[in-house]
Amino acid sequence: MSADQPFKAKLTRYQQRIDAALDRCLPRDDPPEHNLAEAIRYSVLGGSGKRIRPAMVYAAGEAIGVDSASLDAPACAVEMIHAYSLIHDDLPAMDNDDLRRGRATCHRAFDEATAILAGDALQALAYEILTDGHYTRLPLETRIAMLRLLTRASGAHGMAGGQAVDLASVGMQLNLVQLEAMHRLKTGALIRASILLGAMCNPEVSSAEFDMLDKYSQCIGLSFQIVDDILDIIGDTETLGKPQGSDMAQAKPTYPSVLGIEASKQRALDQHAQALAHIAPLGARAQSLRELSSYIVEREF
Amino acid sequence: MSADQPFKAKLTRYQQRIDAALDRCLPRDDPPEHNLAEAIRYSVLGGSGKRIRPAMVYAAGEAIGVDSASLDAPACAVEMIHAYSLIHDDLPAMDNDDLRRGRATCHRAFDEATAILAGDALQALAYEILTDGHYTRLPLETRIAMLRLLTRASGAHGMAGGQAVDLASVGMQLNLVQLEAMHRLKTGALIRASILLGAMCNPEVSSAEFDMLDKYSQCIGLSFQIVDDILDIIGDTETLGKPQGSDMAQAKPTYPSVLGIEASKQRALDQHAQALAHIAPLGARAQSLRELSSYIVEREF
Repeated sequence: MSADQPFKAKLTRYQQRIDAALDRCLPRDDPPEHNLAEAIRYSVLGGSGKRIRPAMVYAAGEAIGVDSASLDAPACAVEMIHAYSLIHDDLPAMDNDDLRRGRATCHRAFDEATAILAGDALQALAYEILTDGHYTRLPLETRIAMLRLLTRASGAHGMAGGQAVDLASVGMQLNLVQLEAMHRLKTGALIRASILLGAMCNPEVSSAEFDMLDKYSQCIGLSFQIVDDILDIIGDTETLGKPQGSDMAQAKPTYPSVLGIEASKQRALDQHAQALAHIAPLGARAQSLRELSSYIVEREF
Repeated sequence: MSADQPFKAKLTRYQQRIDAALDRCLPRDDPPEHNLAEAIRYSVLGGSGKRIRPAMVYAAGEAIGVDSASLDAPACAVEMIHAYSLIHDDLPAMDNDDLRRGRATCHRAFDEATAILAGDALQALAYEILTDGHYTRLPLETRIAMLRLLTRASGAHGMAGGQAVDLASVGMQLNLVQLEAMHRLKTGALIRASILLGAMCNPEVSSAEFDMLDKYSQCIGLSFQIVDDILDIIGDTETLGKPQGSDMAQAKPTYPSVLGIEASKQRALDQHAQALAHIAPLGARAQSLRELSSYIVEREF
């Protein structure tokens, strides 16, 4: 398999759209004393970020007939949550990474205190965007539901909880159930939120459609993490934007370490097939979601 | 002057009320792998926290006729934002404090990674509480307005921005204008939000009342910081819950370093008098706000 050209072009359009939207939302013009806004812009804009979560928001919205303009605010919000989590995860006390998205990590380019505050401020801004009538015209009920979903996905019962499990698992041999439980929180919760926020932008979305997209999101969340783990072993630093082998170097449990590489690839393809099956009833308008799921598993094989 | 007994009894009731509300909202039951919920509960509950920001929410709500039950959610939210900021500010890369609220700081009692994640998860939870129909029955429009206010007060243009200025100011001599600009962000923004969130719980609050409370909040925000700076010099570790002299040890600019102690005291009393003048038209129902302003400046003189 190979990712088809039309989807690469579509992904580029999503990337251009989200980069423009982020540029409008992010703070600029630091006071003379510090460079917090500069650190935030450095971490979110530029670099080799794939904007895969915003692409999920746009593709899910398209699948149920939402115009792109309504999707910009949630797309910015999920990318800001993702960016904040990368800044904090890269800190010396966590994964201690020097390279991210092909450039120095935030705490290396600035300093640790600035990186902690940049992440903190980005988290606040992610939610602020969804409250602000300047950025979103969605009904109040939708905005509150989106905020509830995104705050839950980010907190102790979502991404932050998953990162805590991840850090505690260094050097341990997890079984498949434990590994998937960790990833359902650490990366899965925000991927699920990205798909569902896109869906919620159509207040008329049916519960059947919502349920299909929910199941789809859980499949692509797992396939995404499996491929990430495989790439950490067989990818190169240029593709990854971070040093290859960093999971292994940190003795983190991964799909290949639990299942082996071939069985991991098969599991990713199985999740991809299930993802497609879940959204089959959505027909042609879910084409971008199909291509996105393909793109996720085809990043390397 | 000395704080009067009736207000101390009232403050104790506020403290009991917020502690019970926080206990209901905070996560519990960690999985076997980590102790994120334990670190969160350790940092928020117990210790010698005065709960002054929740008291502001309750007192402001009382002043415009809001029942206490409606005020629990915003009171929890501001205390969670405050607690998360303390956890992160205490980190080695920031203020590097070992003692907080009379106990080991979060990163000393647990570890740095857990402290970063506990702060991150608390920030998400603070906003989640305001979205959740289980914790608040306020109209959707009010909840969105509260979230907009609180996210802005916490982010790059509020508390996080103020902390960035604070860190950049170590060893520098600021003038009064610069010092107040810093504190308006670092502590003032969340104190203002605490008062205004209480006011917003009455959707019928008039713009005149809101404006009075806004001005009041800015006065008590400054008097609070001035007294904090004075206490850092003349208080003892038991009163402060942290080592006395830590601002001086870190060469941070403070009101006493800019104005001297006596002029700083006078400035705090001036702010107190102005705070009272702003809320005079609210009459008897603003009694708790008056007592709160007295309490803030009477903590030490």
